[in-house]
Amino acid sequence: MTEEIVVVEGDGIGKEVVPAAVSVLDAVGDFEFVRHDAGDAVKEETGEALPRETYDAVAEADATLFGAAGETAADVILPLRTAVESFVNVRPAKAYPGVEALRPDTDIVFLRENTEGVYSGHEDRLSEDLSTLTRVVTTSASERLAEFACDYAPEGFHVAHKANVMRETDGRFRDAVTGVADERGVDTEEVLMDAFATHVCLDPGQFDVVVCPNLAGDVLSDLAAGLVGGLGLLPSANIGSDNALFEPVHGTAPDIAGEGVANPSATILSAAMLLDHLGYDEEGTAVREAVESTLADGPRTPDLGGDASTEDVTEAIIGKLD
Amino acid sequence: MTEEIVVVEGDGIGKEVVPAAVSVLDAVGDFEFVRHDAGDAVKEETGEALPRETYDAVAEADATLFGAAGETAADVILPLRTAVESFVNVRPAKAYPGVEALRPDTDIVFLRENTEGVYSGHEDRLSEDLSTLTRVVTTSASERLAEFACDYAPEGFHVAHKANVMRETDGRFRDAVTGVADERGVDTEEVLMDAFATHVCLDPGQFDVVVCPNLAGDVLSDLAAGLVGGLGLLPSANIGSDNALFEPVHGTAPDIAGEGVANPSATILSAAMLLDHLGYDEEGTAVREAVESTLADGPRTPDLGGDASTEDVTEAIIGKLD
Ligand SMILES: CC(C)[C@H](C(=O)O)[C@@H](O)C(=O)O
Ligand SMILES: CC(C)[C@H](C(=O)O)[C@@H](O)C(=O)O
Repeated sequence: MTEEIVVVEGDGIGKEVVPAAVSVLDAVGDFEFVRHDAGDAVKEETGEALPRETYDAVAEADATLFGAAGETAADVILPLRTAVESFVNVRPAKAYPGVEALRPDTDIVFLRENTEGVYSGHEDRLSEDLSTLTRVVTTSASERLAEFACDYAPEGFHVAHKANVMRETDGRFRDAVTGVADERGVDTEEVLMDAFATHVCLDPGQFDVVVCPNLAGDVLSDLAAGLVGGLGLLPSANIGSDNALFEPVHGTAPDIAGEGVANPSATILSAAMLLDHLGYDEEGTAVREAVESTLADGPRTPDLGGDASTEDVTEAIIGKLD
Repeated sequence: MTEEIVVVEGDGIGKEVVPAAVSVLDAVGDFEFVRHDAGDAVKEETGEALPRETYDAVAEADATLFGAAGETAADVILPLRTAVESFVNVRPAKAYPGVEALRPDTDIVFLRENTEGVYSGHEDRLSEDLSTLTRVVTTSASERLAEFACDYAPEGFHVAHKANVMRETDGRFRDAVTGVADERGVDTEEVLMDAFATHVCLDPGQFDVVVCPNLAGDVLSDLAAGLVGGLGLLPSANIGSDNALFEPVHGTAPDIAGEGVANPSATILSAAMLLDHLGYDEEGTAVREAVESTLADGPRTPDLGGDASTEDVTEAIIGKLD
């Protein structure tokens, strides 16, 4: 059976790095790729950043590979996470040999709650002066995340939160996550999200897997990206029960878009997570190793100090797969 | 006229670093110190972490110097910020010559909104499964912060927010802050709080003054603390219209409390901010310079690789004031 993968390039370098990742997937398996549009360019043409048919295709596919969207990023990616009913955003932040990093000893996977918190979308303008946002935390979503975390990291994980201030909501999150872990005999250690921000700079090696509410996961994983040398190398997976969407953490990089020199590593690493998810574990591992060895030996795109093109790097990675 | 300064040592190393800062204040001016209690120890004794008389004294003083509180930190510091009607928390994060820092080119002042956001305290348990928190943003509080920022940084500042997701609330914050700055001819540059977390690691030198909502200011300033070598050196000021409270950003450090080796620099730098606030600009600058020169030349407490005591460091600082 040929698996169907929806491919949404989006804007900017999305149009360069997604085709690169598709050619890597083509090299390791037999997939059917179905292309759909989303982002600034589509909005300009049609008035809608996320066409209904893209949403539906992503909702029905086995998996989706997404590139990046510009100004419309939130209008595209937040509904697409809903389309795949994603309850967890998996964000590995790892420093690679050969790539300059502020903290080469960083190797952390963030498991970010992907449906609620301040992302719930309930905002009100109550008066001329005052607006509110309703931050939502449920035990059910927190427990589901915790079950995933226990499968992912049976050796234990950190739980980052701000329950000393958000006592009821982050208190609920913390209790639900540690409750599931306790039942399953998985160790957890709590850390306040502000303290985490200091400690991860001073000693990232002490953190391995970090489970967090939605916004905490957004900010703390971007912080870890800074420690490993930028967003250019970070993949991510939005996992739902029957479906999933994979995307590089970086954006459209308008400064270099169209020049053919974008670093495809983050998207190819996202494709490796897609392979893992579909059960192609060997292929996923092979792709990851090919990316890592190319990062170590070159060729390199300009963001890593080289002068290779997206295509040069992609070919080198594919060459290592044989 | 002798100014009255309320002194609240709190718990742990608060009991060591606050007396150190008081002796520095004594060396440069004629102040009346009034001692009050708060924190874990008081709670154990009386059942209340923040006695009414402490709250009232802080509310009525010209200024307060606070140390740290343990488990009860939030029960103490959040009401005390209200007691002084503080609308801005000023948090400088600076790397000092002689102190090992991940990013020695960090010199950023965070101006953190100090009354609202997710700190507004409105949380509800709506069902067995679901709790909510009401995040509050007002134009009036945001404009007041912006007026302060324009006075503080007439050469311009960054505004960090997450208005791409929290469109109504952080949109209001952003529009209010940039609106005031525009009217006053002060330049502003926007940055998403997650992008800030990456960029400040990669190139902290591009940031000077950063205005943020309450939780963003909490997390991003702690991140900057990681870049300059830890919380040990960061002072802070909670400024209200007629009143203010000064505190080191660090906590009670239970591992070293009672040993007389706590680094008093953050609290003495907080005392320098107190001097500035009361109009003793020359004295404030002198204290800051004495701390900086002691950090450069020693003596040093163990956290900075030395073996000096709190007292040794304090005496060295006072010695440089003559
Ligand atoms: C574009 C934005 C809505 C998104 C988020 O906040 O989740 C992005 O920052 C990310 O982390 O994928
Ligand atoms: C103790 C806690 C309530 C406090 C805060 O979140 O403001 C602390 O982290 C700080 O930054 O002063």
